[in-house]
Amino acid sequence: MKVYKIPEATVMRLSIYSRYLHQLIDEGVDTVSSGEIAAGVGVGSAQVRKDLAYFGEFGTRGVGYKVEELYGYLIKILGLDQQWNVIIVGAGKLGSALALYQGFKDRGFSVCAILDNDPGRIGQKLGETTIEPLEQMDQRIKEHNIKVGIVTVPAQVAQEVTDRLITAGVTAILNFSPKVLRVPHEVTLRNVDLSVNLEVLSFNLALNS
Amino acid sequence: MKVYKIPEATVMRLSIYSRYLHQLIDEGVDTVSSGEIAAGVGVGSAQVRKDLAYFGEFGTRGVGYKVEELYGYLIKILGLDQQWNVIIVGAGKLGSALALYQGFKDRGFSVCAILDNDPGRIGQKLGETTIEPLEQMDQRIKEHNIKVGIVTVPAQVAQEVTDRLITAGVTAILNFSPKVLRVPHEVTLRNVDLSVNLEVLSFNLALNS
Repeated sequence: MKVYKIPEATVMRLSIYSRYLHQLIDEGVDTVSSGEIAAGVGVGSAQVRKDLAYFGEFGTRGVGYKVEELYGYLIKILGLDQQWNVIIVGAGKLGSALALYQGFKDRGFSVCAILDNDPGRIGQKLGETTIEPLEQMDQRIKEHNIKVGIVTVPAQVAQEVTDRLITAGVTAILNFSPKVLRVPHEVTLRNVDLSVNLEVLSFNLALNS
Repeated sequence: MKVYKIPEATVMRLSIYSRYLHQLIDEGVDTVSSGEIAAGVGVGSAQVRKDLAYFGEFGTRGVGYKVEELYGYLIKILGLDQQWNVIIVGAGKLGSALALYQGFKDRGFSVCAILDNDPGRIGQKLGETTIEPLEQMDQRIKEHNIKVGIVTVPAQVAQEVTDRLITAGVTAILNFSPKVLRVPHEVTLRNVDLSVNLEVLSFNLALNS
């Protein structure tokens, strides 16, 4: 399957469609139209059709999509038909919250290791996982074949931690630090700035005030 | 200023452009082209021009945009020329992390209150803010003229908490719970599912494997 140049916003919507389809499966629904998906997740139906069209022809005009078939396809596209092992570096409040985040488990992401260099944190348990020193990084990444690293350390050490993760074999980085990170071309980087979410709200508040 | 039907993805990019422009101001840069903004934040330059065109004519052909002027305009569009007071309901690990999240402060969001119903949490301090019981909701919202509520409670109580926030005067809800919430038409709701971020990574990992 060759897939080219899919915009990130599309991938995020595919993720949202797949959740909605999962809900429909639970409800015993067999077929769904693009209009119903659109209404269910709050985007336009033309957008839904356009997003799905990136991946070839789906659905039957006037009948719609087979829910289970489309769900299975989206899960495969999103790489969720396999388990991804994850390492978190930084066991502060955000790192700890992420280590325990049920939403990751529900979608097949398994947090196998969480590291910190604070002796006050090392040895504490977060669910099943014990906080370990940064020196364990190489071993844990190799042992669990970890490809995904989550960086929740302070800005001043974020680049160094990222470099170490990549050297040890991680090829996808989710960065929660405010630092702009540099990664090699072959590594996928995604920066999460949680305040962007609040700014979508303040945009709307300012618009209506 | 009338602004119609701006896609949420555009608003999120405006937020990211504004951060980049802030960085340019710090570096003493006076003018910037759409191509430079595009390269700086990692989107296409046609996209940058299209996003900015929603808000009228900017920039001069061949010269580019005046950095400070464009920054000021984006900040105003995003509603960040004013301070927004925020209440967090749910002082678990994620709620606590958000209460201390520097990125909110940096962008003019002030967490004025954090509530929980767990006696073991009530009275604990998160930075300057003390965790208080849910009974304080009405008083804090009125006292600080809070318009933005962040919901980080378990799914089974998320709708009830949201209803109470809205009744007390909140008009924008950021939902971190996995629950699909129902809000009145005039209330802005944004759902944050952190695993979507990991799925953008697994999409890329699956693509390249």
